Amino acid sequence: MNHIDLLARLAIENDHRIVLLVLDGVGDIRAADQPMTALDRAELPNMDALARRSALGRTVPVAMGITPGSGPGHLSLFGYDPTSPDADIGRGVLEALGLGLKIGQGDLAARGNFATLDGDGNLTDRRAGRIPTSVCQRLVGSMQAALSAFDGAEIEIVAGEEHRFVLILRGSGYSAEVADTDPQKTGVPPLAPQPQTREAEATARLLAEIIARMNEVIADEPKANTVLLRGVSRLPHLPQIPDLYHLRAGAFAGYPLYRGVAAACGMEVVPCGKYFHEIVPAVRDNWMRFDFFFLHVKQADKAGEDGNLKAKIEVLEQVDAALPELLALEPSVLAITGDHSTPAPMAAHSWHPVPLLVHSPVCFVDGSQEFTETCATQGHLGTFPASELMGLLLANAGRLAKYGA
Amino acid sequence: MNHIDLLARLAIENDHRIVLLVLDGVGDIRAADQPMTALDRAELPNMDALARRSALGRTVPVAMGITPGSGPGHLSLFGYDPTSPDADIGRGVLEALGLGLKIGQGDLAARGNFATLDGDGNLTDRRAGRIPTSVCQRLVGSMQAALSAFDGAEIEIVAGEEHRFVLILRGSGYSAEVADTDPQKTGVPPLAPQPQTREAEATARLLAEIIARMNEVIADEPKANTVLLRGVSRLPHLPQIPDLYHLRAGAFAGYPLYRGVAAACGMEVVPCGKYFHEIVPAVRDNWMRFDFFFLHVKQADKAGEDGNLKAKIEVLEQVDAALPELLALEPSVLAITGDHSTPAPMAAHSWHPVPLLVHSPVCFVDGSQEFTETCATQGHLGTFPASELMGLLLANAGRLAKYGA
Repeated sequence: MNHIDLLARLAIENDHRIVLLVLDGVGDIRAADQPMTALDRAELPNMDALARRSALGRTVPVAMGITPGSGPGHLSLFGYDPTSPDADIGRGVLEALGLGLKIGQGDLAARGNFATLDGDGNLTDRRAGRIPTSVCQRLVGSMQAALSAFDGAEIEIVAGEEHRFVLILRGSGYSAEVADTDPQKTGVPPLAPQPQTREAEATARLLAEIIARMNEVIADEPKANTVLLRGVSRLPHLPQIPDLYHLRAGAFAGYPLYRGVAAACGMEVVPCGKYFHEIVPAVRDNWMRFDFFFLHVKQADKAGEDGNLKAKIEVLEQVDAALPELLALEPSVLAITGDHSTPAPMAAHSWHPVPLLVHSPVCFVDGSQEFTETCATQGHLGTFPASELMGLLLANAGRLAKYGA
Repeated sequence: MNHIDLLARLAIENDHRIVLLVLDGVGDIRAADQPMTALDRAELPNMDALARRSALGRTVPVAMGITPGSGPGHLSLFGYDPTSPDADIGRGVLEALGLGLKIGQGDLAARGNFATLDGDGNLTDRRAGRIPTSVCQRLVGSMQAALSAFDGAEIEIVAGEEHRFVLILRGSGYSAEVADTDPQKTGVPPLAPQPQTREAEATARLLAEIIARMNEVIADEPKANTVLLRGVSRLPHLPQIPDLYHLRAGAFAGYPLYRGVAAACGMEVVPCGKYFHEIVPAVRDNWMRFDFFFLHVKQADKAGEDGNLKAKIEVLEQVDAALPELLALEPSVLAITGDHSTPAPMAAHSWHPVPLLVHSPVCFVDGSQEFTETCATQGHLGTFPASELMGLLLANAGRLAKYGA
């Protein structure tokens, strides 16, 4: 039996609350030019004190050597097999969910960028000079007005930040097998929306018409005079967390992508700020509404991707400073880990196992003295697939029945 | 998705070189009568210095408790599931590939032994007193001449060392489901080649005729007066390493079996000596021709199988002495491990996890002080299936794309 099916079969309800704190990209490496990691160097009195009352270990996001994007990294943490075809969430759907939009089973979503064309019809800027969000909203409003009477589809266009927007086609019968129109380089024209299968031909023709209408509306704009579509996709058939685990699940994430993944898994996205000290109050305000709290702190990953060890240390110290407020809520189970490592020397996501801390009254206090990669390697929990973490959290919360007599 | 399919999907090319040094049977055990292993006791200044700049861990060749033969042990290291039917390489094919022979998709290969019959037709020596290779070559020449006009099959017979030869039937329509004719004991006659399925009946009849002709040719020989066939087999359908991983792969192994496995996986077999200090110059001479270098050192396994701890220590110290020459090539990734353990107290292959060292700029320098079983147990890489090692090596070489957005 698949691990997730086993959990679904055994999950039971009680009033124990689980908090999963994801420090995006927290894991790092020791290397010739970086003898200590951010966790080694940061002053984390609260986290280290917690480690001394906890069990440590490591999660493997996808598989040995595999570097995950944020989507697979989080799906794994939520208990899904990230290599299953069902777990392939398209970028358009992610963006739409991240903006808090509802996506129906038949709907089609795509991510849009405003871009700049020169007089010859070639792209000069794939992000239209990162136009202000207010301009984006004005243009989206005009396009929505022009397309509201469009014959053949119910269309919804929603502005994102700067040059980004989301296009949603409501209804059914659409195919997601349509290629991006963004050529990923300048000096060439945008691509036509190419169908990848015969079944996608009608959808591709429809998208071509919609793009043409959008372009008409914005033709005279100084910068944002064309649109590019990417990640045409439909909602994946992911079993939903409330059904799987009998958990009312709330997502507290400051960035659209992570909200999108959480929503696709059946979590309720709760508005909150982008920093941990803003997220914790939102969790407190919603403490009685959920059994499972997914908290996402983006900035550790950002610092890692910038190759900035000092910034990564600061992020961790900021989290540590606000940790007592989270602990004051007295969650039955608190887990701290990442969706992947983002080692500063690599300035990118990596495959390295991610340190994990699990605290509960029955976690096995394993003698770890601090929350670091090195302590985690020696910890009681061992190194195991991230997709098995949910089982461990449910168990620590007393939320899994015994298997067999 | 299977691990190997995931790797095949994500593999990308660059100019980073990977060296996999297999110390056959390197792992050992601590036991009442052997308180320290060969790695514990050997003086390995170069390997230990490398360990201090590397990550350690352990590979599990097949599965917990499973003792692998050399074939499965190596297939695992090359990324294949050694329990998959596709990974079942017959002994005949291995021997033929090991001798550098080309095997076509339809060809049938068997390993042959010269043996001795008494006047009653019973076996007295299953290896014909280990006749000199020169005698083997003369007899094979006579048999080949007698069978060149054989009606019904294109036959190729190739001499190996001492009493060994390989029989190849070129063509198609053959079945490999024919049992060995070697009864594995003396005092009884050779067995007839028994078909194991209906489809194999024609092939079995053909092999019986060929064996009869061979025996006619050598009937008057004093020792080698009969032949035994084993491991009737066809080429397995293994996906090839250049296609799987986008690697130009070279095998540097002094013994036929290991050359055979490497060739079956799509590696180019490069002529070289049997000792590590002979292998390294061959690697250097071919450094620009490959991206992946499989180096095989047999003698550690031999010493383990002889129950000779002292000899095993000497082999390791010989490897250590020549290690700087290999390091001077500056491979991007260097891994040292074995295809299985061969503990001296057991004088046989075993199931014990095999120590692993991985060195690269991003390996995670884990503080290991020496390359031993005990340090490996504590290392950053953890204990994982040998079939996932290729993923780790590709990742360390920057040869795997990110999985998902």
